Amino acid sequence: MNHGYDFPRIQFANQEDKQEFSKFPTKTGRRSLSRSISQSSTDSYSSAASYTDSSDDETSPREKSQVNSKGSSDFCVKNIKQAEFGRREIEIAEQDMSALISLRKRAQGEKPLAGAKVAGCTHITAQTAVLIETLVALGAQCRWTACNIYSTQNEVAAALAESGVSVFAWKGESEDDFWWCIDRCVNMDGWQANMILDDGGDLTHWVYKKYPSVFKKVRGIVEESVTGVHRLYQLSKAGKLCVPAMNVNDSVTKQKFDNLYCCRESILDGLKRTTDVMFGGKQVVVCGYGEVGKGCCSALKALGAIVCVTEIDPICALQACMDGFRVVKLNEVVRQMDMVITCTGNKNVVTREHLDRMKNGCIVCNMGHSNTEIDVASLRTPELTWERVRSQVDHVIWPDGKRVILLAEGRLLNLSCSTVPSFVLSITATTQALALIELYNAPEGRYKQDVYLLPKKMDEYVASLHLPNFDAHLTELSDEQAKYMGLNKNGPFKPNYYRY
Amino acid sequence: MNHGYDFPRIQFANQEDKQEFSKFPTKTGRRSLSRSISQSSTDSYSSAASYTDSSDDETSPREKSQVNSKGSSDFCVKNIKQAEFGRREIEIAEQDMSALISLRKRAQGEKPLAGAKVAGCTHITAQTAVLIETLVALGAQCRWTACNIYSTQNEVAAALAESGVSVFAWKGESEDDFWWCIDRCVNMDGWQANMILDDGGDLTHWVYKKYPSVFKKVRGIVEESVTGVHRLYQLSKAGKLCVPAMNVNDSVTKQKFDNLYCCRESILDGLKRTTDVMFGGKQVVVCGYGEVGKGCCSALKALGAIVCVTEIDPICALQACMDGFRVVKLNEVVRQMDMVITCTGNKNVVTREHLDRMKNGCIVCNMGHSNTEIDVASLRTPELTWERVRSQVDHVIWPDGKRVILLAEGRLLNLSCSTVPSFVLSITATTQALALIELYNAPEGRYKQDVYLLPKKMDEYVASLHLPNFDAHLTELSDEQAKYMGLNKNGPFKPNYYRY
Amino acid sequence: MNHGYDFPRIQFANQEDKQEFSKFPTKTGRRSLSRSISQSSTDSYSSAASYTDSSDDETSPREKSQVNSKGSSDFCVKNIKQAEFGRREIEIAEQDMSALISLRKRAQGEKPLAGAKVAGCTHITAQTAVLIETLVALGAQCRWTACNIYSTQNEVAAALAESGVSVFAWKGESEDDFWWCIDRCVNMDGWQANMILDDGGDLTHWVYKKYPSVFKKVRGIVEESVTGVHRLYQLSKAGKLCVPAMNVNDSVTKQKFDNLYCCRESILDGLKRTTDVMFGGKQVVVCGYGEVGKGCCSALKALGAIVCVTEIDPICALQACMDGFRVVKLNEVVRQMDMVITCTGNKNVVTREHLDRMKNGCIVCNMGHSNTEIDVASLRTPELTWERVRSQVDHVIWPDGKRVILLAEGRLLNLSCSTVPSFVLSITATTQALALIELYNAPEGRYKQDVYLLPKKMDEYVASLHLPNFDAHLTELSDEQAKYMGLNKNGPFKPNYYRY
Amino acid sequence: MNHGYDFPRIQFANQEDKQEFSKFPTKTGRRSLSRSISQSSTDSYSSAASYTDSSDDETSPREKSQVNSKGSSDFCVKNIKQAEFGRREIEIAEQDMSALISLRKRAQGEKPLAGAKVAGCTHITAQTAVLIETLVALGAQCRWTACNIYSTQNEVAAALAESGVSVFAWKGESEDDFWWCIDRCVNMDGWQANMILDDGGDLTHWVYKKYPSVFKKVRGIVEESVTGVHRLYQLSKAGKLCVPAMNVNDSVTKQKFDNLYCCRESILDGLKRTTDVMFGGKQVVVCGYGEVGKGCCSALKALGAIVCVTEIDPICALQACMDGFRVVKLNEVVRQMDMVITCTGNKNVVTREHLDRMKNGCIVCNMGHSNTEIDVASLRTPELTWERVRSQVDHVIWPDGKRVILLAEGRLLNLSCSTVPSFVLSITATTQALALIELYNAPEGRYKQDVYLLPKKMDEYVASLHLPNFDAHLTELSDEQAKYMGLNKNGPFKPNYYRY
Repeated sequence: MNHGYDFPRIQFANQEDKQEFSKFPTKTGRRSLSRSISQSSTDSYSSAASYTDSSDDETSPREKSQVNSKGSSDFCVKNIKQAEFGRREIEIAEQDMSALISLRKRAQGEKPLAGAKVAGCTHITAQTAVLIETLVALGAQCRWTACNIYSTQNEVAAALAESGVSVFAWKGESEDDFWWCIDRCVNMDGWQANMILDDGGDLTHWVYKKYPSVFKKVRGIVEESVTGVHRLYQLSKAGKLCVPAMNVNDSVTKQKFDNLYCCRESILDGLKRTTDVMFGGKQVVVCGYGEVGKGCCSALKALGAIVCVTEIDPICALQACMDGFRVVKLNEVVRQMDMVITCTGNKNVVTREHLDRMKNGCIVCNMGHSNTEIDVASLRTPELTWERVRSQVDHVIWPDGKRVILLAEGRLLNLSCSTVPSFVLSITATTQALALIELYNAPEGRYKQDVYLLPKKMDEYVASLHLPNFDAHLTELSDEQAKYMGLNKNGPFKPNYYRY
Repeated sequence: MNHGYDFPRIQFANQEDKQEFSKFPTKTGRRSLSRSISQSSTDSYSSAASYTDSSDDETSPREKSQVNSKGSSDFCVKNIKQAEFGRREIEIAEQDMSALISLRKRAQGEKPLAGAKVAGCTHITAQTAVLIETLVALGAQCRWTACNIYSTQNEVAAALAESGVSVFAWKGESEDDFWWCIDRCVNMDGWQANMILDDGGDLTHWVYKKYPSVFKKVRGIVEESVTGVHRLYQLSKAGKLCVPAMNVNDSVTKQKFDNLYCCRESILDGLKRTTDVMFGGKQVVVCGYGEVGKGCCSALKALGAIVCVTEIDPICALQACMDGFRVVKLNEVVRQMDMVITCTGNKNVVTREHLDRMKNGCIVCNMGHSNTEIDVASLRTPELTWERVRSQVDHVIWPDGKRVILLAEGRLLNLSCSTVPSFVLSITATTQALALIELYNAPEGRYKQDVYLLPKKMDEYVASLHLPNFDAHLTELSDEQAKYMGLNKNGPFKPNYYRY
Repeated sequence: MNHGYDFPRIQFANQEDKQEFSKFPTKTGRRSLSRSISQSSTDSYSSAASYTDSSDDETSPREKSQVNSKGSSDFCVKNIKQAEFGRREIEIAEQDMSALISLRKRAQGEKPLAGAKVAGCTHITAQTAVLIETLVALGAQCRWTACNIYSTQNEVAAALAESGVSVFAWKGESEDDFWWCIDRCVNMDGWQANMILDDGGDLTHWVYKKYPSVFKKVRGIVEESVTGVHRLYQLSKAGKLCVPAMNVNDSVTKQKFDNLYCCRESILDGLKRTTDVMFGGKQVVVCGYGEVGKGCCSALKALGAIVCVTEIDPICALQACMDGFRVVKLNEVVRQMDMVITCTGNKNVVTREHLDRMKNGCIVCNMGHSNTEIDVASLRTPELTWERVRSQVDHVIWPDGKRVILLAEGRLLNLSCSTVPSFVLSITATTQALALIELYNAPEGRYKQDVYLLPKKMDEYVASLHLPNFDAHLTELSDEQAKYMGLNKNGPFKPNYYRY
Repeated sequence: MNHGYDFPRIQFANQEDKQEFSKFPTKTGRRSLSRSISQSSTDSYSSAASYTDSSDDETSPREKSQVNSKGSSDFCVKNIKQAEFGRREIEIAEQDMSALISLRKRAQGEKPLAGAKVAGCTHITAQTAVLIETLVALGAQCRWTACNIYSTQNEVAAALAESGVSVFAWKGESEDDFWWCIDRCVNMDGWQANMILDDGGDLTHWVYKKYPSVFKKVRGIVEESVTGVHRLYQLSKAGKLCVPAMNVNDSVTKQKFDNLYCCRESILDGLKRTTDVMFGGKQVVVCGYGEVGKGCCSALKALGAIVCVTEIDPICALQACMDGFRVVKLNEVVRQMDMVITCTGNKNVVTREHLDRMKNGCIVCNMGHSNTEIDVASLRTPELTWERVRSQVDHVIWPDGKRVILLAEGRLLNLSCSTVPSFVLSITATTQALALIELYNAPEGRYKQDVYLLPKKMDEYVASLHLPNFDAHLTELSDEQAKYMGLNKNGPFKPNYYRY
């Protein structure tokens, strides 16, 4: 690594984070299975994968020779023949992502990404396909790879390849495959990326390591994940960030909508699909009352569960009180609970000691962060029996016959056992698209070699693109009112510190 | 039919009914696929069936020779080897049906069903297995058959057979199989039923037709379904009911809990599993504001949907108003709706005209009654294209490209696409068990040849058995208070007309 | 009492009852202050009384000579000059009672009460004035008196007198005044009642005792209260009821709307007006989960209180569980509670022992029944200090300084400290008006000398008259649908046992 | 004004602001009646004022000679004899302000305000009395005056004077009185303020103008209001702020709790006390979905109203959608509405045109900002009749008889017609006390001549002091967890930009 780039290990403290970190592959360790949207794709009822993926075709895609209907073979997917099925899944996703479709229409005439060559590395799902095809519609040329070895929906990848996107990804890549795909994405004769769209920082990392000269042409990086954003801030701090970068993760629309509303819906779904549990009258403790915890508590209470909360932060604890939840310590209540749900972002929130005190039939799951919140390792002891009763559902059995029902082995329930609404993903995807447009078209000098938040006005634009889904009609300020409020009639409407 | 028994065609008017009627097989018509808990077993994520049922064993169970581990072959199931898997499903169900387990314990010493020979005909699922094994624990000998050709969980049937219950049922019976099984259930040398537990009236019908003399020994019939109950009332009216019968369907615990709370949970589950739809901000119209409608509205509103209601009954309409739902006519709002949900018990509530006016992406489903509420037949016209996008999910496509998303082809969503909580089924099963005990042990003369409702005190007992699930502590009346209220300290606590 | 009529003492057991009983004046005891809507009139912010009643005019109305603007003096009220103010209060009430206004309009042409001479005895408030004036508009001649010595709004009585109704009532009657007024109401030369509208049975009782011959002309009695209805049933049982009577109290519209929805609104109002307490995060125990308790729990939970419930009836207890409330015994939780609310209809639900264990600042109040639920008498002991801090609010102070905040001295909070929405009263008043019309116009023989419930179809009509308030649009059954359901297109739509 | 201080006119744009501005007295104009907590004191049922203030004593307090029981006459209040009554009101307030009491206890030993001489200018209510007496308990000497000419609770002022605080305030001051009181507060021989606690900036302004030299000794200013804070920022910007100042207004605890939760409670209370309106089924439009609007919508929806929202900001609009509220333009829906509630902070949100289109009986009120949101002036035209039906309630009558019900003449409903929970005021008061302690004890150099936000750790401390009210138990981080999260175990727990 003679370019002197030392990619830092980040330390991370954001409680609300639902993403998973410490995922960077190393030579010495086994690749973490985190960021496992892949599990979700396999397990969940709605996944495309369940229909066509039962093929016993074990040939590595890298060894296959495939051609799409236009004669191109500049892609590598599991099976190009699944394209039609994938197209249908994309079409279903489009129905709830009309903001992107609307963006296509509004910007299609002017082609704001004409000339853009985007190298992308994200989960490859029906929803990201809608994003990619939007970028193409806006004028971009895209090459794409997966940011996770498990999460690719093969049919969707096939549909993208069929439509002409050079995509390199399949479900179940090896670590070697993973980097091979990333390399194929950026290392192409006669094509050099001038924009990067990353989710996790692996693509950015690879380019830094292998093709640093590419950055001479790159106008900007758009990064969505907590991990990737922190890597960028570290680079910036170290003076090594050589292009502008846009932090999409901390935009209001992502934080408030993705966490609060998305979890409000997925906690019920994840629990039902795995356990068929009835919510009415169930005693539930939710650990952590950040946005994720707020979403979980709200949904569970609404369906008749009796919910209490644990918190370390007195401000969030006071909110829980005012919202009607008792604030307790876990060990005070764990014996009575029917469900224990972690949403803290911390580690070992549920310990073996807690697990020992749970009652028979208690359900334990994690909505928060990585797989650290529940000390699952502590359950791997000889006196306990593990019984896999369904996919993603283990009964851990104590010597006295008590069973604790552990979901997704302590990994993220909503990624593993439920689906994420396309609408919520649309908000993030639209933000990514706008960030790309902004960075690609910004006059020289507007952005330095630093990490930026999307301007509030663009956050507001993202939101406004999603209002037609709800047939919502925005009120316009009169001139007189705008003057009275000291606002521009077109926004932004709030100061930066506004909390929403 | 020289016994002069003319089994009547019922006419039915109960709006809240979630069961399905007009299911009686006739020679001339194809057997209705209604009461299709079977669909639910196949489709739903949690079903046992999805794990072991992929076998391509096409041999009819009637042609197989199977023996359980105790050497008995007095049963007929798909595959006795699936018993262990079925046992696990039964054990999972037991966890939420502790009232039955508690009934086993309380009544086990005295064996209140000692000597009882119960012929049963119900859905055969993990939950009914818990009921059957409770009856056995209380002293009964049981022979059992399925009340629906699709709903049997084969593994559970195997587990029952392995444990010694003579069960005759498998998933996917032909009509001939159906009656053959019923016959095997009651026609056994050296064993004659003295109690009947029925769900739909088919078993009762068969005995009336084929073995009328059996009724000389039968002490009573316990019937759970709307259809079966109505048949019994017709028999009674016609003076042809020759034993006492207990109407379990109209007990408070069943009506209020099964309909209101069960639907509150299953509407969300059914919609998520089929469409992954986000509820927040969705415009929904719920047709019918009975208990089922109330449950659906409550859940959808709680998760952020904007719900309006249609009603024919001004009292229910006024309740909807006071609960915060606009009361509208369907054709006034159908253009704006994201979802249309029927809960009326009526027919053609959603017509082709309504469907023509729906917007692209509108989801249509039925929570109410049979498959009559949505005029699905009207969609089978040449200009419309049907596309099956997932199991239970059809896109019906208009010439202009508009898609309406039809779930379960208009059949019951909660039976087809979600699961029913074991806890709710436990309430009904406990009621059935108590009704059997009551009829079997009643002193001569207490019950005539008529149809009875369970005494309110037993309803209260059923409820009380379910309170420990919630760690609920009941208050006892003091002597003074009981006297003041004019009540017995042990109940019943309410007059018969009390509405709850 | 040579007519041999022995008016029975009733025993009463209805948990949901919000009315107050055992109010019958006796010679020996002081008149019970129960049915104390009077308190409400005095105390509540919105009462008309607070504006004009501060007059120090202590002359008894019986000794005053007053004439209305038309020259009539056939009335007896506090001060005829207050008529204009009372008229304004009536007009305000009319805005939320448009069902009665609509009834006036629909029936005005045909004057269905032409010839009716109604003797009425009810609370005299703005809302009952709307009822009385509706009866007049429909053709009736009305003479009216108050059913409670405290509840009359003097200004409203004045407005009625001014408009020509012969009303005999004022706030603060003595017991002697009370019977004098009743007598003036029915004992009038040249006028003999042929219909009775009663609330509590006092008027009926007086006529039975003093003018039994009047019943020869009376076509029917309409009775609204629990007490009065029970008296009627006792008369009927004893074979002494000599005219048909209509039990308005047990109509669906009254039971479900008056109790559930009315209490949902008034519990918050009553607590705020007396204590300004914040609901968020407060620990509350609600004793009793009937309709009143359900209404209280729903409102308190919705505003962020943490609510638990006590119950004696396992069915209601199970409903509480499913609705998300812990079911506890009062003595288990009383130490932690911020508020204790009784809704049982029973006596001594909150005992001195409970009160001794409450924490400092605990609020105790009664929404249920009379003044028996809280054992207030037990607090009248020397070691406790009572401090009246506001109207209707006492601090009871223990020797260690602990204060318990007792509202309305244990009487009904919603009558004493909040107002009842006109809309809810409109439902009852409309029912009364329809019952009068039905009895007055029924062909001979339709009603015998018995107590009747309003036909369900009329319940439905009452409800339908209230739907325009909400701009609610009812759906009509098609012929085909009505036939399928076995219903008449105009109702009734439900069987009598339907629980709503 | 030779000190060169030109106090700026602020321009203000904060939508969430519930306070009222532009209240600064000028010679030319009539003093604005805004910040009218005074109305609330007069009108509301619970106000102390209603009991003792009916005195017709018209003598100006300035002309009275009064002495408290200790012989001091260094105060000026309405009537020192009302002290006992005021003490009782203070004691009631203390029950819900236990955080301040707890602060007294924790800090009483060390007397952190020993030597502090605090000149204070706030509303003088039972709640601020608890604050003032806490400051005294912590060692401060206090002189106090009112920040509003109407809001003083005379009895409370008397109780403070009786206990030794030099208080100069009464309800109904003239403008001249107002400044005379402020002057008496700071202009005292032998006593010079070294701390200022202000609410609105009038006291600060007066000192700047009249006694600039005082600032040599002042260690800091604590300012609570939006207006005052903005004045301070203006001073700071102009380089004229000569001491450190603490902005209490923008602390999290104030913004999130005061606005969201306080309005959730007070909207219902204010509407009920003025109109007795029933909420169930009412159509309501809430203009503005900031914290105030969120609180209003949440409460109204919870009680069965059908709520829609207007917004100018697409992000808030999207939140409204996800929370289940239709987002509309006012003129689209105004004809159907039963209530119109403004929460925008803007002006002329409800115009005459809107008012002309409202239906009969529509209630219009303002929860947002000053008295600008509803264009009340436009209703002062000859063809409209105003009728004052109750205190704070006007019927505005159109020529066709239509009535619109206007509350508080468009001023703030929750200040005018409801009470604010002591608990919420406790949060703000505790923050003020801590800010005083921090500024008074800060080592030199920690704070410059600038405006500061309270450190997040102190916000968290304020919250933690309020948790015992709810018996809430906070969880502590383990060392391992703190390290993993990169947090100090004692907080702060969140980054500054965290939105809660």
